[in-house]
Amino acid sequence: MATKVGIVILGDEVLKGEIREANIAYMIPLLADWGAETSLCAILPDDIPVVVRHLRWYLEEVDLLLLTGGIGPTPDDITRDAVAEVAGVPLVVNPEAKAALESRPYKGANPSFRLLMAQVPQGATLIPNPLSPAPGFFIARMAVFPGVPRMLQAMFEWVRPMVSGRRRSRVTLYAMAPESSYAGIMKDAMSAFPDVGIGSYPISDGEYRVRVVFRGDRFDRTAACAERFAKFLPETGFEVLRRVEERGDDA
Amino acid sequence: MATKVGIVILGDEVLKGEIREANIAYMIPLLADWGAETSLCAILPDDIPVVVRHLRWYLEEVDLLLLTGGIGPTPDDITRDAVAEVAGVPLVVNPEAKAALESRPYKGANPSFRLLMAQVPQGATLIPNPLSPAPGFFIARMAVFPGVPRMLQAMFEWVRPMVSGRRRSRVTLYAMAPESSYAGIMKDAMSAFPDVGIGSYPISDGEYRVRVVFRGDRFDRTAACAERFAKFLPETGFEVLRRVEERGDDA
Repeated sequence: MATKVGIVILGDEVLKGEIREANIAYMIPLLADWGAETSLCAILPDDIPVVVRHLRWYLEEVDLLLLTGGIGPTPDDITRDAVAEVAGVPLVVNPEAKAALESRPYKGANPSFRLLMAQVPQGATLIPNPLSPAPGFFIARMAVFPGVPRMLQAMFEWVRPMVSGRRRSRVTLYAMAPESSYAGIMKDAMSAFPDVGIGSYPISDGEYRVRVVFRGDRFDRTAACAERFAKFLPETGFEVLRRVEERGDDA
Repeated sequence: MATKVGIVILGDEVLKGEIREANIAYMIPLLADWGAETSLCAILPDDIPVVVRHLRWYLEEVDLLLLTGGIGPTPDDITRDAVAEVAGVPLVVNPEAKAALESRPYKGANPSFRLLMAQVPQGATLIPNPLSPAPGFFIARMAVFPGVPRMLQAMFEWVRPMVSGRRRSRVTLYAMAPESSYAGIMKDAMSAFPDVGIGSYPISDGEYRVRVVFRGDRFDRTAACAERFAKFLPETGFEVLRRVEERGDDA
């Protein structure tokens, strides 16, 4: 079973409509490629009690939480406080992060506020930031990254060993059929292959009406489930027009 | 006080990396423009117990939940079941929705599965869908829309009267200052103006380094808070390079 991952964006700037969230769409395909399963995503306000409450809920749902945003030096950066509270430890100055910040002074920066970025929850592991001396950190199943997309992207590979699993297989069928025409066939395939998940997604634009996706841990089972669906589809007066196969790590 | 809104995307296709979520970025700016406050967003899997659990949590946090996706006729469409469970009522066939679906038969559609789209939680109000006879619905502080963006967009105005409030004022300052240089000034402005929220957001590309956003219910207070910040900023060796004013409904 793949690691179940939750993504939490600390994001007043997203919730207030000032920027369009861009990190979720970066992380999800990479995580899938690494064999992890994204189980939920949330965008939360910069509000410590709200974030603490949600992080506790989400940690019951997933193996690992990936957080982005809110780790700068200004008073609206509340992620490290919220994560420390959830981990049940105080914030402490990390000597390695402090040394890195001090060794790269920044024109106009105020050292006392800048060093807030060296504060991490006690016992946290640093996540190196190749673009800045301000690191991310990991503690209590929470990995915390900056919200700036190019920093997140430069650091994200760090979690790969923690989430790596067997990539699932996927077979996608495209057709012109209306969803209701094959809902019964889909139900039948679902009971015959309880180990394969099936999703049916209308397509708003393009040359097909609908996409039916079969996902499973075993390629042979996934393909056989798709096969069963495709065999019965012509009874509805429609047929599979295109078939895309993505083999997982078992095949 | 503006209506506090939560957005929930029912979204295996997003979590599995098959499509990029697009409805959140459509809804948030419109809600802000109508004077509502988006308090949280979540993307959840097509799994009834998970969705029920999260909807219950979120209903404690917000006044209104806007849901999109998962209301088609196939077995992976679980939104209506989850919402009915949270509302504590059974699913029933809505005669108006049934008549609309029957009056517009669809080539190849299977009537018995298609009529699943006429099932809504008992007591729900229909949300008209001008693009299809399959409606959305509202019950127990949850408004449910299709996930297909052009349908959501054609229907979304329906919630406007439920969320309309006073649009907040906003003043945005742009500068080249590093965040740590003004963190103390920001803290000072926050205590002098507890009724104004301040966010500081680094800019990765473009001609400025940072954007400081002041938001409040009263324009005069918001502008005065920004003024105080701008007055002290030169002490850091930097100054405000650009100022953008968006007056709310009080001004």
